[in-house]
Amino acid sequence: MIRIGILGYGNLGRGVEYAIRQNDDMQLAAVFTRRDPASVKIVTENVPVYSVKDAAAHASEIDVLILCGGSANDLPVQTPEFAKLFNVIDSFDTHAKIPSHFENVDKAAKESGKVGIISIGWDPGLFSLMRMLGNAVLPEGADYTFWGKGVSQGHSDAVRRVKGVKNAKQYTIPVESALERVRKGENPELTTREKHTRECFVVPEEGADLAQIEHDIKTMPNYFSDYDTTVHFITEEELRRDHSGIPHGGFVIRSGKTGDNGANSHVMEFSLKLDSNPEFTSSVLLAYARAAYRLSSEGVSGCKTIFDIPPAYLCRQSGEELRAHML
Amino acid sequence: MIRIGILGYGNLGRGVEYAIRQNDDMQLAAVFTRRDPASVKIVTENVPVYSVKDAAAHASEIDVLILCGGSANDLPVQTPEFAKLFNVIDSFDTHAKIPSHFENVDKAAKESGKVGIISIGWDPGLFSLMRMLGNAVLPEGADYTFWGKGVSQGHSDAVRRVKGVKNAKQYTIPVESALERVRKGENPELTTREKHTRECFVVPEEGADLAQIEHDIKTMPNYFSDYDTTVHFITEEELRRDHSGIPHGGFVIRSGKTGDNGANSHVMEFSLKLDSNPEFTSSVLLAYARAAYRLSSEGVSGCKTIFDIPPAYLCRQSGEELRAHML
Repeated sequence: MIRIGILGYGNLGRGVEYAIRQNDDMQLAAVFTRRDPASVKIVTENVPVYSVKDAAAHASEIDVLILCGGSANDLPVQTPEFAKLFNVIDSFDTHAKIPSHFENVDKAAKESGKVGIISIGWDPGLFSLMRMLGNAVLPEGADYTFWGKGVSQGHSDAVRRVKGVKNAKQYTIPVESALERVRKGENPELTTREKHTRECFVVPEEGADLAQIEHDIKTMPNYFSDYDTTVHFITEEELRRDHSGIPHGGFVIRSGKTGDNGANSHVMEFSLKLDSNPEFTSSVLLAYARAAYRLSSEGVSGCKTIFDIPPAYLCRQSGEELRAHML
Repeated sequence: MIRIGILGYGNLGRGVEYAIRQNDDMQLAAVFTRRDPASVKIVTENVPVYSVKDAAAHASEIDVLILCGGSANDLPVQTPEFAKLFNVIDSFDTHAKIPSHFENVDKAAKESGKVGIISIGWDPGLFSLMRMLGNAVLPEGADYTFWGKGVSQGHSDAVRRVKGVKNAKQYTIPVESALERVRKGENPELTTREKHTRECFVVPEEGADLAQIEHDIKTMPNYFSDYDTTVHFITEEELRRDHSGIPHGGFVIRSGKTGDNGANSHVMEFSLKLDSNPEFTSSVLLAYARAAYRLSSEGVSGCKTIFDIPPAYLCRQSGEELRAHML
């Protein structure tokens, strides 16, 4: 049994907890929290919740620690820090800072002889893998990534900061006609506006100026001004009833040419349609936690990404079983 | 430069030859043929064509030998045989015989200290990888593979063997309504007939009994009797004009549930739309030839499949470049 520790018990941590039940070679060994452990109620019975301050004392009870904090402030500090004591895995998703995060985790993990796997999930994660495979297989071609339809937490937060907004949810939506052009192998050059639209469901404060709210959202730099945005005003009740989920998904498409003067076109497409963004991310994290455990058992140390890991390491099955049933 | 050898110069071998031009870290070093080398005209200038009987004498000129023969008779013999002298890679696609083929290649390659990568292409190959990833990430779910729309060589051959048939082409077509049910996460149980239809374009011999031909095709066991089949009679001219390509493709879909009592559904889908089945297979072979070269350079030996190879080994780029630009 692979003993899994969870650090940070929010949507992602709870998703990992549920996902462990679907993997019979794994067990939840402990949850670590920055809150008062007595205040954290987890789903699994008879599993301890510890303060993160006491993590070092429990290092021998954990095979892989899954870091479920945020990329902005938590993971840049936590992943290198805990790689000194544990095999760790995170879903660090600030693309621009991945190289420096890798260096920090690699240094810590090599010194401790542990494995650290970073940026696991679906983007970065499975989508990265698909982009890489597409480029490797069709060197002459074009890449497209579309996101959605799904909830963007960052954009929802931005809308909630607008004056007169009480609550809000923002969906990122791929433009179907752009997707179709890409699928046809047209290799179009697409602007930001041509790839995605944004749809906001806004609960206004009483007496708020709705026209002003809509204007403030649609003209917000970086977040909305480069997109065609639709704003719907709804009640708090409607928001709760119709928009409480955290769905997401997207498409990675590689189109390329082969043969005599590029005579033949090919389109590779990978897509995800996810009811729960954090639960799916949790499931990917857990598969790669198995890989971290195996790599560590083989004496490997240092930082790894999805590009470095042989796919078979994600599976419970032996090489024989995989070859007989999945190849 | 990775020096590539091609064994067998048909559609697949020529596809590899073209694909090498898209990979600037590779060069075609030699083509080996069972025919009279003087009779084989290749596209690339100043590259020798040798008799396959003389392959051993040229072992030092080749880093990876790509075996482009057929799975029925060629590869079961060739891949273990040439693994004694070369790093080899093949597209062996007889799913049921993969375990024994693996054993044979593994034994030969371990004795010679070479790397042999088998069953590379899209199915087996990229589709296998997607099935495996789907199972690893969503352990509670269902798998679906659909093929087409595309030309099945085996079924086209079977139609051509029918009495009164002069020439023929057969397309395998996924049933759109079944695909839609799977995409919706319904996890349907689908019969053979519900998943694919078959469409035949037949050039009859002069004076042939068309009704009899149609009956013989539609009732043919294993090939057609379990499917809804459409038969079109056309002229040799129409066959040449409209059906000379070798397109193919398909869909691998994993749908699964996560969370509290499986509250949330997720659908992972990978699809290919290929103008040329052999050229795309060639492109996949070449990416994995790069992996064979790297593994061999690191002192690895034995047989590998797509499950065993870290994805980064397929790419020219360094780990730093991949992390900065593709993760």
